[in-house]
Amino acid sequence: MSSKLRVAVIGAQGRIGSEAVRAVEAAGDMELVAALGRGDRLETLTEAGAQVAVELTTPASVLDNLEFCVRHGIHAVVGTTGWTDDRLARLTGWLDASPGTGVLIAPNFSIGAVLTMKFAQAAARFFESVEVVELHHPNKVDAPSGTATRTAQLIAAARAEAGLPAQPDATATALDGARGADVDGVPVHAVRLRGLLAHQEVLLGGEGETLTIRHDSLHHSSFMPGILLGARRVGSAPGLTFGLEHFLDLG
Amino acid sequence: MSSKLRVAVIGAQGRIGSEAVRAVEAAGDMELVAALGRGDRLETLTEAGAQVAVELTTPASVLDNLEFCVRHGIHAVVGTTGWTDDRLARLTGWLDASPGTGVLIAPNFSIGAVLTMKFAQAAARFFESVEVVELHHPNKVDAPSGTATRTAQLIAAARAEAGLPAQPDATATALDGARGADVDGVPVHAVRLRGLLAHQEVLLGGEGETLTIRHDSLHHSSFMPGILLGARRVGSAPGLTFGLEHFLDLG
Amino acid sequence: MSSKLRVAVIGAQGRIGSEAVRAVEAAGDMELVAALGRGDRLETLTEAGAQVAVELTTPASVLDNLEFCVRHGIHAVVGTTGWTDDRLARLTGWLDASPGTGVLIAPNFSIGAVLTMKFAQAAARFFESVEVVELHHPNKVDAPSGTATRTAQLIAAARAEAGLPAQPDATATALDGARGADVDGVPVHAVRLRGLLAHQEVLLGGEGETLTIRHDSLHHSSFMPGILLGARRVGSAPGLTFGLEHFLDLG
Amino acid sequence: MSSKLRVAVIGAQGRIGSEAVRAVEAAGDMELVAALGRGDRLETLTEAGAQVAVELTTPASVLDNLEFCVRHGIHAVVGTTGWTDDRLARLTGWLDASPGTGVLIAPNFSIGAVLTMKFAQAAARFFESVEVVELHHPNKVDAPSGTATRTAQLIAAARAEAGLPAQPDATATALDGARGADVDGVPVHAVRLRGLLAHQEVLLGGEGETLTIRHDSLHHSSFMPGILLGARRVGSAPGLTFGLEHFLDLG
Repeated sequence: MSSKLRVAVIGAQGRIGSEAVRAVEAAGDMELVAALGRGDRLETLTEAGAQVAVELTTPASVLDNLEFCVRHGIHAVVGTTGWTDDRLARLTGWLDASPGTGVLIAPNFSIGAVLTMKFAQAAARFFESVEVVELHHPNKVDAPSGTATRTAQLIAAARAEAGLPAQPDATATALDGARGADVDGVPVHAVRLRGLLAHQEVLLGGEGETLTIRHDSLHHSSFMPGILLGARRVGSAPGLTFGLEHFLDLG
Repeated sequence: MSSKLRVAVIGAQGRIGSEAVRAVEAAGDMELVAALGRGDRLETLTEAGAQVAVELTTPASVLDNLEFCVRHGIHAVVGTTGWTDDRLARLTGWLDASPGTGVLIAPNFSIGAVLTMKFAQAAARFFESVEVVELHHPNKVDAPSGTATRTAQLIAAARAEAGLPAQPDATATALDGARGADVDGVPVHAVRLRGLLAHQEVLLGGEGETLTIRHDSLHHSSFMPGILLGARRVGSAPGLTFGLEHFLDLG
Repeated sequence: MSSKLRVAVIGAQGRIGSEAVRAVEAAGDMELVAALGRGDRLETLTEAGAQVAVELTTPASVLDNLEFCVRHGIHAVVGTTGWTDDRLARLTGWLDASPGTGVLIAPNFSIGAVLTMKFAQAAARFFESVEVVELHHPNKVDAPSGTATRTAQLIAAARAEAGLPAQPDATATALDGARGADVDGVPVHAVRLRGLLAHQEVLLGGEGETLTIRHDSLHHSSFMPGILLGARRVGSAPGLTFGLEHFLDLG
Repeated sequence: MSSKLRVAVIGAQGRIGSEAVRAVEAAGDMELVAALGRGDRLETLTEAGAQVAVELTTPASVLDNLEFCVRHGIHAVVGTTGWTDDRLARLTGWLDASPGTGVLIAPNFSIGAVLTMKFAQAAARFFESVEVVELHHPNKVDAPSGTATRTAQLIAAARAEAGLPAQPDATATALDGARGADVDGVPVHAVRLRGLLAHQEVLLGGEGETLTIRHDSLHHSSFMPGILLGARRVGSAPGLTFGLEHFLDLG
């Protein structure tokens, strides 16, 4: 019997799901034992002996899929969104009844995006000024991006905890919108440009110096290393883990 | 007699003026023949045999200074602001009466800033998307900067002339200000950060590619090469020249 | 009969060729009248009434294809490489015998890359210092890229023409390679990084300021706007044109 | 009696020293009680009741100054360089004899530079590729900078610890120097450009994404926040602390 990690993908026909299938197949320490699409039976997971399931479907089906996985002791790595307190409570209930099983839910599987947030948060208290610029393709419907808003909130919380005052800003006359959106006191600017995919820059400034942390996502394959890392580690983290950062050992 | 260009500085005690004094002294092809501060007699210019005067004073005194220079055939390079049609008309009248004398007025003597505007203008018609991000120290009172607004206007004019449609932007839900200020259809974002001086970035995006033109002004000495270039060339450009770009031979 | 430009693609099955087929089909002012792959008869071009052929094949077949096109008065836009003086001379001979027919050969159809080179060249004489940093995916076999080398050569020529001295550089002790490759006196640095595609940055520095021109190619679809622009204009440019820049009206 | 921290500056007439004098005077929680220049008596420190001394002199005098401070229980924050094992051993000996006294020696007091190193180190194991680009004014005599070399070494150590293989690089033909200097397997590129001061960029790349951490030092006042932070904390850290990062609570 193989000593490789036995991984299944649920939602294998979607854009991210099909990438995940290829990524698992290419990983030297994993074996793809099942790839479920719409309508496939969940029992395939147990019949195939899956140890970890990568769940990349929709809010409508994720709960049923996870209930099955957790009841059968299959760990899960979940990219599907739409988590409310109520939905999380149901999931936690199943996990309580199945000690030893782990589920990782991550709003963002890009390691670079997660590190950007963590570093911005860690650096925030050392700088007087901080702003976020996010840049995306022009088909994006919301501005700023959820990641940028979340990043700004984390920065604002770190500043508050460190007792920093409001940012210096002598602006007296401004065109509407010039100074960006205000997210808890952190200006956030959203650029929409043909040719781009998803990019974010955190600019921190202090006396005589600036620190810039920039993440460029040039292809959605950027989620794969985070998904694989999650699959490797979720088995050693029983219960619910929310956010890939908890598996990055960032101290 | 020296074959060096005989240059005077009017407003020699100001921040930019004192830089100009040093820059003229350091230029191998120039001789500083006069450095006038507040209250000094303009006759010093003629007594010293100045060929070119660098005028760096205030709107209140610039007209008197230029009237004297033009009447005595002294060319002038002018950094003082506040030019209205009426003021320009008076200056042009004096120049008409003194053929062969040249005056260069430039809103911005930074060659990098001028090139950024020219390149942005030249590139604009080839790209679907374009936005401007300007970044300054937090003591700046206006947002966006005059240079950024002017750059966006030039870009918008170039797009209009090329018959480009409005920029693609699917934004449906946005926080106030997230998409920047709208300058003739070009989004302009203003960042204010301790540690910065004056910076501007023009981002152009088309199918599969982006072009970024960025100018960083790290010290106000950045105006000196443009002032010296102006001093060298204004004598061969009789009449009024408005904008340093006309001396840069950019085609 | 349609008033659209009748365009054929030769080499339609290649990676760039198949993109070109899609781009021509999507262009509102063009009609794709033929898409030739390996082994297809060239007579298809005349039978289909092609006005312009986009040639994206290999050095082994490009000459035969162009000979046919030029003899039949079909203009051509050529992305195939490997042009020597001898090969160009043969092409020019055919063009001399077919006045009114135009051929555009371009080593790079990315408008952003071409503009980067032109702007770098135009700006070079105003700055004491200039260096080139190119960044590519790690599968690239040559360093620096051909585009970066060409850019550095153009910059060096512009500096020489303006009579600029060697660049300032006080480096006394250096690790091997730290200061990059020397291309005609312009340092060129090559970064190889997983996740990147093709990027180039020209950094120009003068007293107190820097100007940065950066081109990011995030997808090879970035060649399409240049190919379409070439197809639209080659009919009005009889004879041989080498380099897309000649069709960009950059002055 | 004031409850402010009583701070002295040794080397108060130097470029950094005079900045430090101003910074201490401007800090609301500190009182400048002595500012010693060349030839001034060290006894001034005790007479003034200094609690912390900021030592910014030369390798020739730093040991005598620190011996005096430590013997008299005055904590010290040291920017002077030239530390060898032997010199550190002498200092440690004095500290052993004066328990409760703290000395912080930091090769770099820029918080941004220190964070850049820490973040690069933390991120290194998650990315296949990493390179360092440092950019400085052209009067710098060494390439790459000490900070860049140190950053590359820390990155290389983190990669080794995580068991990462050599970086991917298919380069087969290269101009000498194009791929930078090799520091423990990490390419380091040094740019020298008029107009710049001191800048460093760490580029990390993985499947489909890149993470860039950039530090720009635009004025040597950027050392002041780090020096003040050191002065505030050194009293609670008896013995020798080497490196400002130990006072940044980065986990």
